[in-house]
Amino acid sequence: MAMPGGGGGARRVGVVGLGTMGGAMAGHLIDAGFRVTGVDVDPEARRRLEARGGRIAKTPAELRGEVEVVLLSLPSVAAFEAVVGGPGGLVETAEGTGAAVVVETSTLPLDRKEWARELLAAAGCTLLDCPISGTGAQMAERDVVYYASGDPEAIEIARPFLAACGREVFDLGAFGNGTRLKLIANHLVAVHNAASAEAMLLVRALGIDPGRALAGLTAGAGTSRILELRGPLMAEGRYEPATMKVEVFQKDVDIIAGLARELRCPLPVFAAAAQLNLAALAMGMGTLDTACLHAVLAAWRRQ
Amino acid sequence: MAMPGGGGGARRVGVVGLGTMGGAMAGHLIDAGFRVTGVDVDPEARRRLEARGGRIAKTPAELRGEVEVVLLSLPSVAAFEAVVGGPGGLVETAEGTGAAVVVETSTLPLDRKEWARELLAAAGCTLLDCPISGTGAQMAERDVVYYASGDPEAIEIARPFLAACGREVFDLGAFGNGTRLKLIANHLVAVHNAASAEAMLLVRALGIDPGRALAGLTAGAGTSRILELRGPLMAEGRYEPATMKVEVFQKDVDIIAGLARELRCPLPVFAAAAQLNLAALAMGMGTLDTACLHAVLAAWRRQ
Amino acid sequence: MAMPGGGGGARRVGVVGLGTMGGAMAGHLIDAGFRVTGVDVDPEARRRLEARGGRIAKTPAELRGEVEVVLLSLPSVAAFEAVVGGPGGLVETAEGTGAAVVVETSTLPLDRKEWARELLAAAGCTLLDCPISGTGAQMAERDVVYYASGDPEAIEIARPFLAACGREVFDLGAFGNGTRLKLIANHLVAVHNAASAEAMLLVRALGIDPGRALAGLTAGAGTSRILELRGPLMAEGRYEPATMKVEVFQKDVDIIAGLARELRCPLPVFAAAAQLNLAALAMGMGTLDTACLHAVLAAWRRQ
Amino acid sequence: MAMPGGGGGARRVGVVGLGTMGGAMAGHLIDAGFRVTGVDVDPEARRRLEARGGRIAKTPAELRGEVEVVLLSLPSVAAFEAVVGGPGGLVETAEGTGAAVVVETSTLPLDRKEWARELLAAAGCTLLDCPISGTGAQMAERDVVYYASGDPEAIEIARPFLAACGREVFDLGAFGNGTRLKLIANHLVAVHNAASAEAMLLVRALGIDPGRALAGLTAGAGTSRILELRGPLMAEGRYEPATMKVEVFQKDVDIIAGLARELRCPLPVFAAAAQLNLAALAMGMGTLDTACLHAVLAAWRRQ
Repeated sequence: MAMPGGGGGARRVGVVGLGTMGGAMAGHLIDAGFRVTGVDVDPEARRRLEARGGRIAKTPAELRGEVEVVLLSLPSVAAFEAVVGGPGGLVETAEGTGAAVVVETSTLPLDRKEWARELLAAAGCTLLDCPISGTGAQMAERDVVYYASGDPEAIEIARPFLAACGREVFDLGAFGNGTRLKLIANHLVAVHNAASAEAMLLVRALGIDPGRALAGLTAGAGTSRILELRGPLMAEGRYEPATMKVEVFQKDVDIIAGLARELRCPLPVFAAAAQLNLAALAMGMGTLDTACLHAVLAAWRRQ
Repeated sequence: MAMPGGGGGARRVGVVGLGTMGGAMAGHLIDAGFRVTGVDVDPEARRRLEARGGRIAKTPAELRGEVEVVLLSLPSVAAFEAVVGGPGGLVETAEGTGAAVVVETSTLPLDRKEWARELLAAAGCTLLDCPISGTGAQMAERDVVYYASGDPEAIEIARPFLAACGREVFDLGAFGNGTRLKLIANHLVAVHNAASAEAMLLVRALGIDPGRALAGLTAGAGTSRILELRGPLMAEGRYEPATMKVEVFQKDVDIIAGLARELRCPLPVFAAAAQLNLAALAMGMGTLDTACLHAVLAAWRRQ
Repeated sequence: MAMPGGGGGARRVGVVGLGTMGGAMAGHLIDAGFRVTGVDVDPEARRRLEARGGRIAKTPAELRGEVEVVLLSLPSVAAFEAVVGGPGGLVETAEGTGAAVVVETSTLPLDRKEWARELLAAAGCTLLDCPISGTGAQMAERDVVYYASGDPEAIEIARPFLAACGREVFDLGAFGNGTRLKLIANHLVAVHNAASAEAMLLVRALGIDPGRALAGLTAGAGTSRILELRGPLMAEGRYEPATMKVEVFQKDVDIIAGLARELRCPLPVFAAAAQLNLAALAMGMGTLDTACLHAVLAAWRRQ
Repeated sequence: MAMPGGGGGARRVGVVGLGTMGGAMAGHLIDAGFRVTGVDVDPEARRRLEARGGRIAKTPAELRGEVEVVLLSLPSVAAFEAVVGGPGGLVETAEGTGAAVVVETSTLPLDRKEWARELLAAAGCTLLDCPISGTGAQMAERDVVYYASGDPEAIEIARPFLAACGREVFDLGAFGNGTRLKLIANHLVAVHNAASAEAMLLVRALGIDPGRALAGLTAGAGTSRILELRGPLMAEGRYEPATMKVEVFQKDVDIIAGLARELRCPLPVFAAAAQLNLAALAMGMGTLDTACLHAVLAAWRRQ
């Protein structure tokens, strides 16, 4: 593959979308010795990449032309559709040149990813569905994992780049399984968050020091990643700034409920937890951290 | 404190109850260089301790007379009551001699522990309520933690001995808080177990390879200690031998429900999870591992 | 059977406990042409019966001696035990004389009723377990039903007296089934009450006039006796005076939960409803009408 | 209004859709002395109306031209759209002639009813949203009620015709409130059905005769219309033929869940009940009567 503009031996990778997640990925890739090209609509985001030593391309099509693998980190379906199929989109790179693998890392509706997969396939390019499990804070620490799915050879081509910006890369099989597993992970997050809120309610009701209690709980068999992350917020009653907003998480809750419905999977415990999230929304806590489920439960004890 | 039978400088500790947990504790204490005296009704358990280099006392009273701290690891309320206040029980050690601290590590009703605390206090001895978070398998690996509660000075006296047989010792404040936090930990265990069962149902329904899915889930934000421990059993559909039996766990579920009732803490998600445990019992799975909640949910999809 | 003090042909019946329920029963029996003897610790209650034309006996033993059937309507286990086996209790009536059938109409623990059954059997008397389904207001209108259980012949002997103070008498088989069916009825009441609270929340959220909505709902397939009774209270947000207090109903909720546990009957919908009742208690609404579950749910929408 | 083809004084009404519901409505209207014109695609349905003394029109447009009020009883959105706006549809009646009020009695998406309302308004005709609460069996007995909503004058014009084919007509205010109240009624139906299934599980577990138990329960405070209708099916374990199929009811369950989501109304008890319906679907009971929730729960007790 001829790499226009490529000098030296370092491998080239592109990142479309240089926000919290994409920007941090680009940084990790540079730190790992890769040559990074980026695209973003925000001049500030572009400046940050250049300051780190990255290059800016004008369009996704141009970017794809000069790298081995393209990583997408986009905030919306509209942005995703434009980047793939809009003017200057990835499909416009001259046929037979440029990256043969594009990795979609956002959590977007599967039917849109499927649409993009077909469009890119016609342009000689393999799309991978590869959501990230982890928050922006975790990405900054490279403490995220990738739920890769799609063509196994393409996953192997993408692996070194993904490995540079995360803890682990999982190959989950058929295209779409990445997104599906992300939803299952969020099912667990939803229930664990509610469970943590209930446990901290018991801690308070019993008058045990919340800090000591959390230390004991997180060290034992009852711990979860969410208890570690959200337990301290619940102990302090501090729900801003949000690491994950109730109103944003509600969208995932709805998608999971729809999935359960479609697959005919009764999920009675998730259903109970989902009610707490909806209550938080109804109580006007939509922009608070989901840790505020603790406050939702407390409203049922307030006299 | 004069230590009858004590030679050399090694500190002496007693363990009453040398079963799976107590026997392993005695072993860890010996490995850490302590001199261990044990008591047990089972000759085989006594032989195992002697083979490890420990000493056997005839009664709890005798044992307490020759050690600094006594650890209790007993299977039932009846055994606990006999060891404390029965013939040859801990209160019969000559006044002013023997261990001034007794550490109760089992999960027993708090009112019985309170009764023992008063009886021992009259005999010049401080009882600590100190349940263990962890299974027998974890104890064998010293991978357990102690939820200590009661007199803070007594906790410090007991700390080196407990630290020798576990990962961490938490001081949770007033007597009884140890047991209370253990119940809260089990609240989390109950919900996480049900959540894991639901998640694995989704994994199956979606046709994702359970092993890969579990690897991805446990590496991400949706993980819990219980998913790590029970997820593989659910993936294999192997519920024997039980690491925790449904019928044994149901007792804790009932105690937690009673506690929530008494404290007036609505726990809607726990309540939903508790129904799954009861269903397992009703379906004749009482002696299986609690991982079988996965099979309970599957019964609601079987055609 | 010789009836001391009996003149004319009217049949004689005794009522022990002349409160809201028992007093109304005595009145209905008089209206039906029976001669009624009563016992009560409250002089005012005794005066009311005499004013209606009833007779007052000094003790349950004396009362039983002069009637065919005794109906018990007592406020507590202590009162029940005293009336049956205390000084001047029902068992002290001279052997071979007096009523051979005693009908227990309160909702009391079955083990106490079983104790009384044996005691009375030894005194030649058959006890029936026969709780009432209906409130004090319904009893005033004779709009209650009897869940009779125990010896079928005794039920037939008691039937005309019970029929005089209610809408219908059901023979439910073995002694205790009356109390058991009463618990099942209260299971339904608990769920229907929560369902009504949810439905009225939807009505409000949609801005439909609550009065019209209730008229429509109670006329259709979604109605329940509880919606008819509690819906208007929810529509007005008026929870005092209580027709059934949250704290009183919570006792039944706990007994039903214990029964489900003992019978190994998963009741996931009841479990969810029970959480709302507990929340009402926790929110300090213990003395309000159970219709206040509507307010509990509203707390999860208040901003 | 000139009525072509009208002789004598009897008022004329049209019914579009002569299936189980519409056919029975037409019959009730004839019994009440109205002159009925019908439209249906099924020749058999048309023959039945003619045999009863009704008239058949070729199109909805023609039908509307010769009546005062049109009642619609249609099986699908497609049929509804065709009847209103398709060739020969209601909007094609010559302007200024024919019925000025059309009553939509089916349960269809509100946005489609809104679309039809606007189309008909442009054709000088007022559409009412007026779902029926009741089953086909109830309609045969005239034992249904109408949830009318929309223009109050139009409701009064339609009232005598609706009153002839049902027990009661409710005016619920703004257009759409009829459908909304129907959904709330179905919320109650869903919960009451699950509650009945749980209650009958307890009845069985306690060994009480199901027939006697049902008689007692339906006579008391725990009764609901659904317990009366579905309880006997549960007692017999007979779920065919379905009075309401699980798979059909699931659609309403989904719409209610979506409504709760949109209105931000937490409905924890409904959410628990909805899981049972989904389980029934997953267990292959989609075509059975919803009374089969009793069997769903029983699967959680089967050993």
